[in-house]
Amino acid sequence: MMECFDPEKYRVPGILGNGISVGIKKNGGKDLALIYSERPAVADGVFTTNVFKAAPVLLDIERIKKGQAQAILINSGNANAATGDEGYASARAMSKFAAEQMGINDDLVMVSSTGVIGEPLPLGKIRDGMERLVQGLHPRGLVQVQEAIMTTDRFPKMVLQKTHIGEKEITICGLAKGAGMIEPNMATMLSYILTDVAIDQGLLKRIFRQGVEKTYNAISVDGCMSTNDTVLIMANGYAGNRTISSMGRDALEFREKLYLVMSELSKSIVRDGEGATKVIQIIIRNARSRKEAKSLAYAIANSNLVKTAFYGGDPNWGRIISAVGSIGIDLPAIMVEVALEGIPIFRAGKGIAENEERIAAIMSRDEIKVELNVNMGDKGFSMFTSDLTFDYVKINSHYRT
Amino acid sequence: MMECFDPEKYRVPGILGNGISVGIKKNGGKDLALIYSERPAVADGVFTTNVFKAAPVLLDIERIKKGQAQAILINSGNANAATGDEGYASARAMSKFAAEQMGINDDLVMVSSTGVIGEPLPLGKIRDGMERLVQGLHPRGLVQVQEAIMTTDRFPKMVLQKTHIGEKEITICGLAKGAGMIEPNMATMLSYILTDVAIDQGLLKRIFRQGVEKTYNAISVDGCMSTNDTVLIMANGYAGNRTISSMGRDALEFREKLYLVMSELSKSIVRDGEGATKVIQIIIRNARSRKEAKSLAYAIANSNLVKTAFYGGDPNWGRIISAVGSIGIDLPAIMVEVALEGIPIFRAGKGIAENEERIAAIMSRDEIKVELNVNMGDKGFSMFTSDLTFDYVKINSHYRT
Repeated sequence: MMECFDPEKYRVPGILGNGISVGIKKNGGKDLALIYSERPAVADGVFTTNVFKAAPVLLDIERIKKGQAQAILINSGNANAATGDEGYASARAMSKFAAEQMGINDDLVMVSSTGVIGEPLPLGKIRDGMERLVQGLHPRGLVQVQEAIMTTDRFPKMVLQKTHIGEKEITICGLAKGAGMIEPNMATMLSYILTDVAIDQGLLKRIFRQGVEKTYNAISVDGCMSTNDTVLIMANGYAGNRTISSMGRDALEFREKLYLVMSELSKSIVRDGEGATKVIQIIIRNARSRKEAKSLAYAIANSNLVKTAFYGGDPNWGRIISAVGSIGIDLPAIMVEVALEGIPIFRAGKGIAENEERIAAIMSRDEIKVELNVNMGDKGFSMFTSDLTFDYVKINSHYRT
Repeated sequence: MMECFDPEKYRVPGILGNGISVGIKKNGGKDLALIYSERPAVADGVFTTNVFKAAPVLLDIERIKKGQAQAILINSGNANAATGDEGYASARAMSKFAAEQMGINDDLVMVSSTGVIGEPLPLGKIRDGMERLVQGLHPRGLVQVQEAIMTTDRFPKMVLQKTHIGEKEITICGLAKGAGMIEPNMATMLSYILTDVAIDQGLLKRIFRQGVEKTYNAISVDGCMSTNDTVLIMANGYAGNRTISSMGRDALEFREKLYLVMSELSKSIVRDGEGATKVIQIIIRNARSRKEAKSLAYAIANSNLVKTAFYGGDPNWGRIISAVGSIGIDLPAIMVEVALEGIPIFRAGKGIAENEERIAAIMSRDEIKVELNVNMGDKGFSMFTSDLTFDYVKINSHYRT
């Protein structure tokens, strides 16, 4: 995955980036990052639905309403969550430091924080580092941004796609940090999508939010939701294509590439889930509604018994069935079919013993597809989850100190 | 806990028990048990709400409707779950074998099974052992029942209470098997309460079900719900007290002792949860409704991040707050207070740093009380859960074979 660090590859016209260390992380690693668009971009964001949203999330929700942004300032090492009114003031303050250095309006600066929660943000360190951060902005700087938002992520998560809209080449670059975190004790997901496409804000928002539903909102590592989860998109129009303003061929082309970026990033977050050794795709077929399908998928994805079975390589359909049955959705067992990698293991209310050996062999793969066909309707849902391992417990039972 | 095995202590007038090995468990342990009342008893039962109920559960739900039972037949080593129509026929058949040997109507025989799911019940072994099982019924036999329903439970779970109703001594004895299971791959909970009190069935049912809500339905090891969970109560009237038929002093006295039995048993199930090293009591105060309080309690109890933090001795209120915030219940952070063992750690939207050291010392206890005061109403809920440990993963990632 070292290719991810090739700064030449991860460039988006009109986008600069930088990441530096200002001493928030105790280990001296990079902990302050800035993404800057050379002109204001149309933008949108999707945030944690946790009731206790961190201060930067509250700020961003307010600012993104106008559909415009020009910069994203991110610190790691401190989540600025559960920090009360001072926390909110700190989030505003850090955006102001950045805005002043860049010479733009601070309303155009989005803010993210990830790290330990409940500790005051070390605002002085951020202020003192700001000049250096802004001075160092560079077209090849997105890899430094990636470095600075990572904590214990085992690998960087950057994806780049190019395509043509009319005769213009457009670029879409996505960054993410996942759930491989010890220090912050929270599985915060941050992700930023940067593109030079020219697109109407309303349309961008529609396409983006539908994509989030299918990607970032269709992954689960441990069923826990952070106070800081954030996905932001900025489209600055530098590609010079005719502005995409309706759902025609151009929009479809952009959407396809955008979803590739988003789905690759979200899947890599699962792959890098805390202690994860396997990615498990859960596909629900023929439910009565998409909501029902999603509930069934999450029931399987968040069952510790299912997740440990996958870790142990045990094709335990009993646990899958039991998880499905535990959420109060009425399903006749006789209708439900379960297959692993296309091989049926449960049908007509019973296990299919003759397939057990074939299944056992499949379980050692590091990516496994579970299909649940409930034969009650025509709606489906697909998501990714990870297994539950010794390392998950090890990582998460560590002291904060 | 070896006192639990004193067969002289665990006697209930008019109740006989026995437990033997008939070769269902691969390790040769006791795997078939029978509880017999010398006359039909008033009875009630509460069962898993899993949509995919095991065959014996389906049978019991039907039979308990009449409010009478005389015997409970239990096998371990095979759950008779996900076994289709044959499974249901097998559950009926095993009750018939027992009924014939005892010379009673099979409608009065309740059946429980626990063990590996999806495999046909070895009915021949049960039939062949039935004569020996019934012949061996004995007033001191409840400890053999306990032995036969245990699988990898680390300790037996038997509780006995005596009190007086009028001038008559009454006895309440409870047995349980918990979630410490490897072989069956399912955390099935079985529990049986046996008493010689004379009580009206309708009143027994009311008292019993309220008690289940506060005890067995207020524990969580891993948020997973088995297809076989069963709690049964039989009251045979041998104590000779004037039949309790309304909510007066006698009913209150009986209820108090019954709830003691039920709460001790359910707590011991948590203590013996798979891999558990700690019992965590979660108390929600001042919620707007009991339902809200319960949802908040379960959100904390089933958060893997909270459970691993307790395992690691980390007083991580951030994870508690985040779990509380993740289930969509609208709570102003400013109103929420969190205390561990009575020491406040979160209040007015912020952590209380000065208490951190005192809290850290408390975290090494093997029983810890978490209180969440949401200051929104006057309803509460209390429950018990366990921590999430290496051993949980070890136990549950094992192969079935």
